Amino acid sequence: MIPELLREKKAQFFVQYASSKNANFYYATGFKIPDPAFYMIGDDGTDLLVVHEMERRRAERESRVKEIASLKDLGFYELLKELGDPSIALSQTLFELLRTHGGRKILIPPDFPSFLSFYFRERMEVEVVENPFSRMRAVKRKEEVEKIRETSMAIINSFEYALKIIRKLKSCEELRSEIETHLFKNGFIAEDTIVASGLLSADPHNFGRGAIEDHIIIDIFPRSKEHGYYSDFTRTVMLEKNQDLEEMLEAVIEAKEKGISMVRDGVRAREIHETVCDILEERGYSTLRQKSSEGFIHSTGHGIGLEVHEEPRIYENKDILRKGMVFTIEPGLYYRKIGGVRVEDTVLVTSDGCEVLTPFRNFVRA
Amino acid sequence: MIPELLREKKAQFFVQYASSKNANFYYATGFKIPDPAFYMIGDDGTDLLVVHEMERRRAERESRVKEIASLKDLGFYELLKELGDPSIALSQTLFELLRTHGGRKILIPPDFPSFLSFYFRERMEVEVVENPFSRMRAVKRKEEVEKIRETSMAIINSFEYALKIIRKLKSCEELRSEIETHLFKNGFIAEDTIVASGLLSADPHNFGRGAIEDHIIIDIFPRSKEHGYYSDFTRTVMLEKNQDLEEMLEAVIEAKEKGISMVRDGVRAREIHETVCDILEERGYSTLRQKSSEGFIHSTGHGIGLEVHEEPRIYENKDILRKGMVFTIEPGLYYRKIGGVRVEDTVLVTSDGCEVLTPFRNFVRA
Repeated sequence: MIPELLREKKAQFFVQYASSKNANFYYATGFKIPDPAFYMIGDDGTDLLVVHEMERRRAERESRVKEIASLKDLGFYELLKELGDPSIALSQTLFELLRTHGGRKILIPPDFPSFLSFYFRERMEVEVVENPFSRMRAVKRKEEVEKIRETSMAIINSFEYALKIIRKLKSCEELRSEIETHLFKNGFIAEDTIVASGLLSADPHNFGRGAIEDHIIIDIFPRSKEHGYYSDFTRTVMLEKNQDLEEMLEAVIEAKEKGISMVRDGVRAREIHETVCDILEERGYSTLRQKSSEGFIHSTGHGIGLEVHEEPRIYENKDILRKGMVFTIEPGLYYRKIGGVRVEDTVLVTSDGCEVLTPFRNFVRA
Repeated sequence: MIPELLREKKAQFFVQYASSKNANFYYATGFKIPDPAFYMIGDDGTDLLVVHEMERRRAERESRVKEIASLKDLGFYELLKELGDPSIALSQTLFELLRTHGGRKILIPPDFPSFLSFYFRERMEVEVVENPFSRMRAVKRKEEVEKIRETSMAIINSFEYALKIIRKLKSCEELRSEIETHLFKNGFIAEDTIVASGLLSADPHNFGRGAIEDHIIIDIFPRSKEHGYYSDFTRTVMLEKNQDLEEMLEAVIEAKEKGISMVRDGVRAREIHETVCDILEERGYSTLRQKSSEGFIHSTGHGIGLEVHEEPRIYENKDILRKGMVFTIEPGLYYRKIGGVRVEDTVLVTSDGCEVLTPFRNFVRA
């Protein structure tokens, strides 16, 4: 994919400058590093990571990159002494590296930092392209699927635990803390877990707080401490009878199940989103397709892996589902005077359908 | 600080495009948001945050920014329909916003994403400047100090707990898990806590694994789940007699104490680093000043707050210590055939000295 891109764009290198908090950088290098480092991949087989001297040996052991260089090797410190300004010294060091490797044109990802791209741009051709690793990451390798499956199972365990204790707890904060600690002990970090009850649940991004009322949206999306892969799962738990909410819940369950039934290799993501909207509109709810600010006001789903939100998007776009993609299907309905409901599964596309990685009954009472 | 910068550079706005994972963005906006948003601050009093419609109400409630606009208000969706490409539609929407506010020249931080800066640069003057919020963040407000103090106390508690159980455990992994779970239950997230024993401790960035041997470096740097502030603390625990290591440990303790004694408002960071190097060299150890790859091979310290590493740097640079700054002093010595030792405290600069926020005895046996 990258060689083709380089040829098409008549460029010699695709480069990244980021820390491993950047999922594309981590995916490309397989190297966990807290501070930014430089990575270049070339049409001539170049696969080179530049780190500080202190990280060199660890990079040689732990990264999947062919060649490691340190800034010291590249003369950064002499240049820093001469120029005084670390960001110019770094820019010049990396530019010289590109130049000595025959770089005349480079490709950079959209989030490439401007201090470097502005320096490069004055000295060579620079073009911003979608990060090819984003697209590569959308289709998961087998071992990545296993990692997401592991995180999915941990979510289901923590949700079952939550259901056992939910009636003993008073506040959303307590329940969130119980779920997150349960996950943490098992090796998963969940933050901002949505545990939203009552009318606060009408805001899909509100994490929730205060008393546990008639119903509660629990949306859990942890990542593994060990390998970094996320999964994502939501259920709406009914604690008391509430006809409006239960009808909304039935509608989103129907929409989710119909959406999941459509998933297979080759299907357009857009069709799934449109069908989800159709079902909810047929049931009398408004959707973002009608520019409504209540009802179904977000997309149907998003890819998940090293990031909570990644490719593909299950929305009004052109993404085509491919075998090995992993994403969520998560219709919700939100009304300020009633509250919100949402159900969400993470699914894996197979050649003739999909596998739900977060299997759990849809309608949950506690 | 920002008005002065804008006047000096003859620019109308300083702008950021980031999520709240970016500490400068979070500091500027006070808004927790998982996906990138646009923030602009102007010489005309403009203080404006642009978010998706879905985040608008939450932004109005939770952010500290004066004015909130949504992409919908700004006509982004019409433009997207017309242009098809979301990144061009976004760039054009934000450029129009800047232009209608009278922007002719803008300032961007070094990490500003290139897809936007390249678009802007073709249409207006754009200059990369050090992020002024980085400098503002170096000097902590009172409430920030209290947050770091809270995290510091949680570290000390978890370290005391670690000392109680260390003899019962066999592996570095178990000890790391115990420390991190202890912190998590109390509301703090620690990841990559360094629990390094034996010769692995000779690599300052090795997290450690395997058997607990004669000594162990424990370096704990969690952040609060609630407010996001970090603190940082290291002790080297001696489990068996080892003359080489104990002499190294005495040297780094002396260097750390001397370094701390020099901290006060107005002192140059560089002097502290040089003194730490002097002490270690006088004791016969090599330092990075001599371009050695063993001995003391990292800087003396770093600011800490919303990031683990932030301004000021206690190193060969020009930073001047100011009242309210919070940073680490952490000399270490690393020899591949002996192992490593390090001691580290987080300190707060006061007008006539400093306060150690992580008070604990220096020489620890267990």
